[in-house]
Amino acid sequence: MNLSPEMRMKVNASFAAQSMMETIGAEIVNLEAGHVSIAAPILPGFQQQQGFGHAALTFALGDTAAGYAALTVMPEGSEVLTAEIKVNLLAPAQGFRLRAEGRVIKPGRRLVIVQSDVYAETEEADRHIALLQGTMVPVTPK
Amino acid sequence: MNLSPEMRMKVNASFAAQSMMETIGAEIVNLEAGHVSIAAPILPGFQQQQGFGHAALTFALGDTAAGYAALTVMPEGSEVLTAEIKVNLLAPAQGFRLRAEGRVIKPGRRLVIVQSDVYAETEEADRHIALLQGTMVPVTPK
Amino acid sequence: MNLSPEMRMKVNASFAAQSMMETIGAEIVNLEAGHVSIAAPILPGFQQQQGFGHAALTFALGDTAAGYAALTVMPEGSEVLTAEIKVNLLAPAQGFRLRAEGRVIKPGRRLVIVQSDVYAETEEADRHIALLQGTMVPVTPK
Amino acid sequence: MNLSPEMRMKVNASFAAQSMMETIGAEIVNLEAGHVSIAAPILPGFQQQQGFGHAALTFALGDTAAGYAALTVMPEGSEVLTAEIKVNLLAPAQGFRLRAEGRVIKPGRRLVIVQSDVYAETEEADRHIALLQGTMVPVTPK
Repeated sequence: MNLSPEMRMKVNASFAAQSMMETIGAEIVNLEAGHVSIAAPILPGFQQQQGFGHAALTFALGDTAAGYAALTVMPEGSEVLTAEIKVNLLAPAQGFRLRAEGRVIKPGRRLVIVQSDVYAETEEADRHIALLQGTMVPVTPK
Repeated sequence: MNLSPEMRMKVNASFAAQSMMETIGAEIVNLEAGHVSIAAPILPGFQQQQGFGHAALTFALGDTAAGYAALTVMPEGSEVLTAEIKVNLLAPAQGFRLRAEGRVIKPGRRLVIVQSDVYAETEEADRHIALLQGTMVPVTPK
Repeated sequence: MNLSPEMRMKVNASFAAQSMMETIGAEIVNLEAGHVSIAAPILPGFQQQQGFGHAALTFALGDTAAGYAALTVMPEGSEVLTAEIKVNLLAPAQGFRLRAEGRVIKPGRRLVIVQSDVYAETEEADRHIALLQGTMVPVTPK
Repeated sequence: MNLSPEMRMKVNASFAAQSMMETIGAEIVNLEAGHVSIAAPILPGFQQQQGFGHAALTFALGDTAAGYAALTVMPEGSEVLTAEIKVNLLAPAQGFRLRAEGRVIKPGRRLVIVQSDVYAETEEADRHIALLQGTMVPVTPK
């Protein structure tokens, strides 16, 4: 579903304000109502002890994609916060790029339930590396 | 409980091999059998859109502290992987340093159940900012 | 995908051995490799304080459907145990029947990652009332 | 901490209104502000396929203890609902009684973060069988 230009601007501005997204080289690659995809390379500074992408990098992408998917269904003037999220790691983060696809499962006035899948893009195919399920809450900035 | 010098060396070597830990400026501040604490500043490049520490930074510390707590109770020759972990975020990551305290709740041959608390250290007091609960698995490096 | 007659018998026998499934009036309504559906009425003895189905009833169905979905992909001779599972509750359990659809996201020798959706069947339509994500492990009965 | 007589009455009335608690033979065995314990036998009708207590029984106790712990810190006139909860199962539910100890980790106007430990009471000692972490929300009954 299409997003209003205002909502599109709002998500882009919030994303740009997250210094961590710039640090990890992330970008929004798809932006629809209730569905946001975010991708990033596995930079040398974000590896775990075996040379794969760190779980926290996978988490950063999955959580952020889910959070912005939630923001697209929240009332104007809201910001989004993660209340809680769980990640099951399925396979090592290995490939030329990681891509998280976040979506809204159930919108609500107080709680927005979300899921993300994270994929490692390789020469051959996308590999499903993580699954997240969580709760986002709208907050009104002071 | 005290750790053997071999286990201490193993945890330190594994930690040093995680480039992400160096990137975020993390260090091990306590290392006991079944209990590991890891701390890091909130660097300018690891903020979310309101200027607080990013949830993925909190996650990185909580997950890593829990993972190394698990490693201390695993058989010699194992490496540790996060199978799954859930985080409840309690308060904004704001302070001069974040500190995660990971501990083993139940060791096991195939699964090690862990928890972490993450605190933001401020001028006045420690603030409890996150709670993690998860499952670590031993893997034998090839 | 079709199940072998042996696996079908094994799942049915294990299900029949769970006294709780009989107590809540549950039955297997679909049984495929990696996908199992289980349904039950909301009996008068399984309500919470507002007269809706209890969260533990929703959990029982979601967890069991996911567990047997996992069992269908485990080696012969295994039993299945839930290592951990998380439920997000989306709406009250209200309707003439609850139905859980469990599926395998990632099979593995040591861990099987699963999801379940639970629906309340009503006169008009199915209502999505819960979402579960968890980890099942094979165990060898002694 | 002591509870007001009004709050004590409110928790007891809500508990009594849950038909499932009566069905499983549960009772409140401790009731303080932010801390509630609930216990139940493992009745023959609540077993899984190996004869241990069903995970849903463990869940029912852990979730309910955590929920009522949360209710004790909610404003007058609220009811409590589970938004989400995760359980890690540590050991089989085997013993003469199960006992869940729920506690509030962080109270809040919109979300109350909770934990529960579930123990199986045996002749020798209490066995820690499950660990829950979740989010409770206050709702105003219509």
